[in-house]
Amino acid sequence: MQENPYAVVAKPGDRVADLATPRPIIDEDRLAANIARTQAYMDKHRLNFRPHIKTHKIPALAAEQIAAGAKGINCQKISEAEVFAAAGFDDILITFNIVGPQKLEALGALNDRISALKVVADSTVTTDGLSSYFASRKPLTVLVECDTGGGRCGVQTPEAARSLAKRINDAPGLSFGGLLNYPKPGAADAVQAFLSEALLLLETDGIACPIVSNGGTPSLFEAHLVGAATEHRAGTYIYNDRSMVRAGHCSEADCAMHVLATVVSRPTADRAVIDAGSKALTSDLLGFTDFGTVVGYPEAVITGLSEEHGVIDLAKCGDRRPEIGEKIRIIPNHTCVVSNLFDTMVFHRNGVVTRVEDVTARGLVW
Amino acid sequence: MQENPYAVVAKPGDRVADLATPRPIIDEDRLAANIARTQAYMDKHRLNFRPHIKTHKIPALAAEQIAAGAKGINCQKISEAEVFAAAGFDDILITFNIVGPQKLEALGALNDRISALKVVADSTVTTDGLSSYFASRKPLTVLVECDTGGGRCGVQTPEAARSLAKRINDAPGLSFGGLLNYPKPGAADAVQAFLSEALLLLETDGIACPIVSNGGTPSLFEAHLVGAATEHRAGTYIYNDRSMVRAGHCSEADCAMHVLATVVSRPTADRAVIDAGSKALTSDLLGFTDFGTVVGYPEAVITGLSEEHGVIDLAKCGDRRPEIGEKIRIIPNHTCVVSNLFDTMVFHRNGVVTRVEDVTARGLVW
Repeated sequence: MQENPYAVVAKPGDRVADLATPRPIIDEDRLAANIARTQAYMDKHRLNFRPHIKTHKIPALAAEQIAAGAKGINCQKISEAEVFAAAGFDDILITFNIVGPQKLEALGALNDRISALKVVADSTVTTDGLSSYFASRKPLTVLVECDTGGGRCGVQTPEAARSLAKRINDAPGLSFGGLLNYPKPGAADAVQAFLSEALLLLETDGIACPIVSNGGTPSLFEAHLVGAATEHRAGTYIYNDRSMVRAGHCSEADCAMHVLATVVSRPTADRAVIDAGSKALTSDLLGFTDFGTVVGYPEAVITGLSEEHGVIDLAKCGDRRPEIGEKIRIIPNHTCVVSNLFDTMVFHRNGVVTRVEDVTARGLVW
Repeated sequence: MQENPYAVVAKPGDRVADLATPRPIIDEDRLAANIARTQAYMDKHRLNFRPHIKTHKIPALAAEQIAAGAKGINCQKISEAEVFAAAGFDDILITFNIVGPQKLEALGALNDRISALKVVADSTVTTDGLSSYFASRKPLTVLVECDTGGGRCGVQTPEAARSLAKRINDAPGLSFGGLLNYPKPGAADAVQAFLSEALLLLETDGIACPIVSNGGTPSLFEAHLVGAATEHRAGTYIYNDRSMVRAGHCSEADCAMHVLATVVSRPTADRAVIDAGSKALTSDLLGFTDFGTVVGYPEAVITGLSEEHGVIDLAKCGDRRPEIGEKIRIIPNHTCVVSNLFDTMVFHRNGVVTRVEDVTARGLVW
């Protein structure tokens, strides 16, 4: 690959206002406060905390999360786990059904490398595939993924969770690690009901369940309502974003990531065009009908994105409107996907660059 | 940056069916037919053709487009143009208002390097910025961007186009290169009316207008209806995608890019979950309410994407439904943004890998 000519984008001491755009920037103080506030909540409720690194994909930030008290990390794919294992992390949970020969081989190498690798499964097809691969190797720890209402992966009933747990417990090469779910926000009661019933069934069978892992940032501060859980996983809380503000998890002042953009056109009185499109902000709507909050221009609406342009409707703004050449800051709908688009992330305190980190696990495929 | 451990994904002779997923794949025969069909149309109508490389970001493909008869290439940002200039392309049009000191400096270096660099502008703020930078350097060619109904950048009237053209013509360091627009599909009459009126005004002023550049894939085969244009720009036509099928530009059999994915979960009879989420397919809806067409399962609906999971509703499918471990192919809503997410692109003929190309201009910032 050709070296990215824009990989070195800033150095400590540079002013954020002077950066070329588009460019996501991270406020150090908000970042630190987000880490501290969440860890304090988990500590208060004696829940183990496992940050999801998909949000930042930066080993140095995971190290800050661990230093604050997190128990281990959560990755969403093997390649992310490889990057973090190489950076020295040992307790890694990959919340994905691993299927297919290349992925099994990569998973085997990773399991040999670190001591506390864990994956999830929600079907006997997945567990049988894992068992045939790991039967002749160092055993792999597998949690049963439960669908407690999130509507993605997961067994559908506590009875099905029990049945798959038994299968894992009996399978050569596998060790049953516990239960896991990814809930709908605000559904703590349903989660608790599902998980506690599954735990009872496992107890009846005499199967130990070391981990019960609940997840999600939107419902993070309801984690204590799920008494069955031993740990909580969350990613977005470290940066926060517009969807987290809407969910009531935080305020705009807690959003550590802004995307810096420049107004490059003002074709009409009511229209501004910026140099941040879907390749900077992404097209993730997450239920919104527009593509981010413009800081300082609350009436401005980012109505459309093409790849390198963002179109902003200023019709509801007063007389003060962004002019060509002006830099604006946008709180993105979804920070995790923005991280995936940039090779480097710029951090600042009060507008002065503090550090530039490689987004080491960016753009990896599986 | 750490080397991507999955950068080498396949070699010629490998079977596409054996590739680890998610993975976009390009059908060589469809690719070649798309290039040939479009170039033949342009040749027939004596229009210069300028492919937009944002769709593929691969110099080898631009070389195939030039070999077929294209006049030059279109880039959307300076970094893309730098990659293609380094690969030997000389006639490059950057369809973006260049604003800000770092971008001006990069543009100056690029203008020194190649002979036929061109950019666009739609305001005196942009042209004044260009002029102050280029006054003491090799002159830069600037086209006036016109908003003929596309609703993004561009001057709003033919009179405004004339006025900005005069300003460029008189500005130190700048050379007026012509007119450019990015139209709404199906609006050839409005485009022709705007451009021909602007041309008349320029003629009145005695200002030569070497290029009149019209664009877009959805309206590509209407390009001949805009008699004022001397050239047409299009990107997506080389791969085609679901939005192009909907626009009537092509059929599903002309879609050269499929995203290969594996079913990793079947939590219910009506739900499948695949390992392609928004970091493979992107969240681009382009007016659709779902995220791609599943080849061979026309009733399947990709209802939701999280970052690494895609959720498919199978309720309307018959008895034959994709099973865990099965690989499926998806025609994405929008190919250009998929290209931006992968370091390498795999090409095949009849399911056998022919080559693997670096997506050299992927993930560059500005």
